[in-house]
Amino acid sequence: MRGLRNMDVRILVLYDSSGNQLEIMADAVGQGIRRIDGAEALVKDISSATPEDLLDADGIVMGSPNWNGVTGRFKAWLDDVSDLANEGMMEGKVGGAFTAGWGRSAGVEATLLQLLHLELTWGMVIVGLPWTERMRTSGSYYGATVHGFLNGDDEEQARSIGARTAQMAKYMRAGGMGPPI
Amino acid sequence: MRGLRNMDVRILVLYDSSGNQLEIMADAVGQGIRRIDGAEALVKDISSATPEDLLDADGIVMGSPNWNGVTGRFKAWLDDVSDLANEGMMEGKVGGAFTAGWGRSAGVEATLLQLLHLELTWGMVIVGLPWTERMRTSGSYYGATVHGFLNGDDEEQARSIGARTAQMAKYMRAGGMGPPI
Amino acid sequence: MRGLRNMDVRILVLYDSSGNQLEIMADAVGQGIRRIDGAEALVKDISSATPEDLLDADGIVMGSPNWNGVTGRFKAWLDDVSDLANEGMMEGKVGGAFTAGWGRSAGVEATLLQLLHLELTWGMVIVGLPWTERMRTSGSYYGATVHGFLNGDDEEQARSIGARTAQMAKYMRAGGMGPPI
Amino acid sequence: MRGLRNMDVRILVLYDSSGNQLEIMADAVGQGIRRIDGAEALVKDISSATPEDLLDADGIVMGSPNWNGVTGRFKAWLDDVSDLANEGMMEGKVGGAFTAGWGRSAGVEATLLQLLHLELTWGMVIVGLPWTERMRTSGSYYGATVHGFLNGDDEEQARSIGARTAQMAKYMRAGGMGPPI
Repeated sequence: MRGLRNMDVRILVLYDSSGNQLEIMADAVGQGIRRIDGAEALVKDISSATPEDLLDADGIVMGSPNWNGVTGRFKAWLDDVSDLANEGMMEGKVGGAFTAGWGRSAGVEATLLQLLHLELTWGMVIVGLPWTERMRTSGSYYGATVHGFLNGDDEEQARSIGARTAQMAKYMRAGGMGPPI
Repeated sequence: MRGLRNMDVRILVLYDSSGNQLEIMADAVGQGIRRIDGAEALVKDISSATPEDLLDADGIVMGSPNWNGVTGRFKAWLDDVSDLANEGMMEGKVGGAFTAGWGRSAGVEATLLQLLHLELTWGMVIVGLPWTERMRTSGSYYGATVHGFLNGDDEEQARSIGARTAQMAKYMRAGGMGPPI
Repeated sequence: MRGLRNMDVRILVLYDSSGNQLEIMADAVGQGIRRIDGAEALVKDISSATPEDLLDADGIVMGSPNWNGVTGRFKAWLDDVSDLANEGMMEGKVGGAFTAGWGRSAGVEATLLQLLHLELTWGMVIVGLPWTERMRTSGSYYGATVHGFLNGDDEEQARSIGARTAQMAKYMRAGGMGPPI
Repeated sequence: MRGLRNMDVRILVLYDSSGNQLEIMADAVGQGIRRIDGAEALVKDISSATPEDLLDADGIVMGSPNWNGVTGRFKAWLDDVSDLANEGMMEGKVGGAFTAGWGRSAGVEATLLQLLHLELTWGMVIVGLPWTERMRTSGSYYGATVHGFLNGDDEEQARSIGARTAQMAKYMRAGGMGPPI
């Protein structure tokens, strides 16, 4: 099924492409994932992603435009698969988040937190971004960001959240955490 | 249009009826609104509410089931009318919130906060619930709640958020705040 | 006591001056308050403010540096006066918030939200900032902000949160809301 | 120094004992940690904990009473050690949270989220509680809770957050994550 060697991990980048910067950010997250040896990135818009993609992943980085929170379109997609939480099938996967919007502090954190909240309800383990000089202008403790027009720092923070998610998933898998079922 | 006397206020109770307890809660919010002299309650599910209902209201109490946040269906409805914020047409209206879900602390506050966040993005003035003995078992600083099966305390907190929203809207209108445009 | 004419309002700007930009921001909030006819501003650091200052105010704008949330020093001050909530003495006052920190999205919203949360627990009515072009670079729906070095937009958003708080307090007072007790 | 075998982990339970239920909860978290083979629990009130305890731990579960957020006393303690974040010394440790208060939804989530926020600023990896039937009456996605008087479900959720934190730390350590420095 997964076609992965035992210690390899697959990270899903699941995003809503409404708003044109999300796709570039999703690609950057994918680049970051591939920086980690043995990590595979699957980058999918919600219009093509399936519940199997969620189940098959060791980690998931979710991205939504900042539309005063997660878009209704993305949330509706997640509502449709919410039973996966009740069944415990997402338990222990690693999760991260990214967003894009116009204002620097205009709900950026709120949108990222909504994504992390959804991941926590699934029993996922959460990865954010630690403080670095880069966070002065891009990124949040809750994940990667774009404010206005995307720049190199934004892409680097996106790569960072991808790499961190993949690295943690790899540690956990190599350490005995079972593969996705 | 509004057909209201100059000092009267109209409060819209706007909710997503997905999940069967929201409708009872919405009715209780409406009862609370009508406790205030000169306050009119308009209780509408999002399947029948219109942008005009928003514009015509002096205050809005929003209710969503706790589906690990506001439902995608409700958020999509709000996304469709989000331009009202850019146009400043919701500015200064009074806002409150309510929710219903199974767990006592399982995202109840997160869902209410998402509703308040949306109201703040519109420039609305926010009303919550202050501490009372009743809050030991029902309600949040962010609004009215149901945990599991609705009881009398839940309904009373719903009435309280309705009455508080109407009262503040009335003070503001009587004090010189212009009528909705 | 208050020495105010009946329809006048007093707004307290209560802040923790740890970090050197808070004082400039607090002064700008005070300027905004004084833009409203009949509104008086009282700007106080927590080292000199008293519980009486809280009680005597019709509205309060709280400011804390973004130290991964409100500073422990400010929170400890608020913990000491928390009984005012139980006694309902803060009920119905108008509240706003501001903060300053290094990162654009590095906990700015989280810090402001902690201040608004405290105000809601007191039964206060919350005022934020609506979307404007200025919010692209400064300010949040939750209040005024500084990212890195304070600039003119930051000060203007601070004036805005002051003016909005004073205006809403004035509407409410003029509309029948009782004076602080 | 640590005196641990290579694959063993040490989890610190760091809490503010203000309010008498926190200590019982902290002990229950410790019991949960010890359920995991090779995991050692160190349970410390902030009056006796040191920065070395933080550095020496593979994971940290933080607990604060719900005083409309984390207590000022606890936050001040954390402010004093905040430089550990800048130095990256907390990076990759596993974090969890617990709280206790009177109301079911009266800021419980807000307090837990403040603790998780602080852990994220340190680059820690976050563990919460997934949905279970027990969460109908106790616990949050953000961590373990007490509402009113502590009961068996509350203690079991506390054990769960302890065990989950220890388990994830063990996976990560066994999988190649370096020991604390």
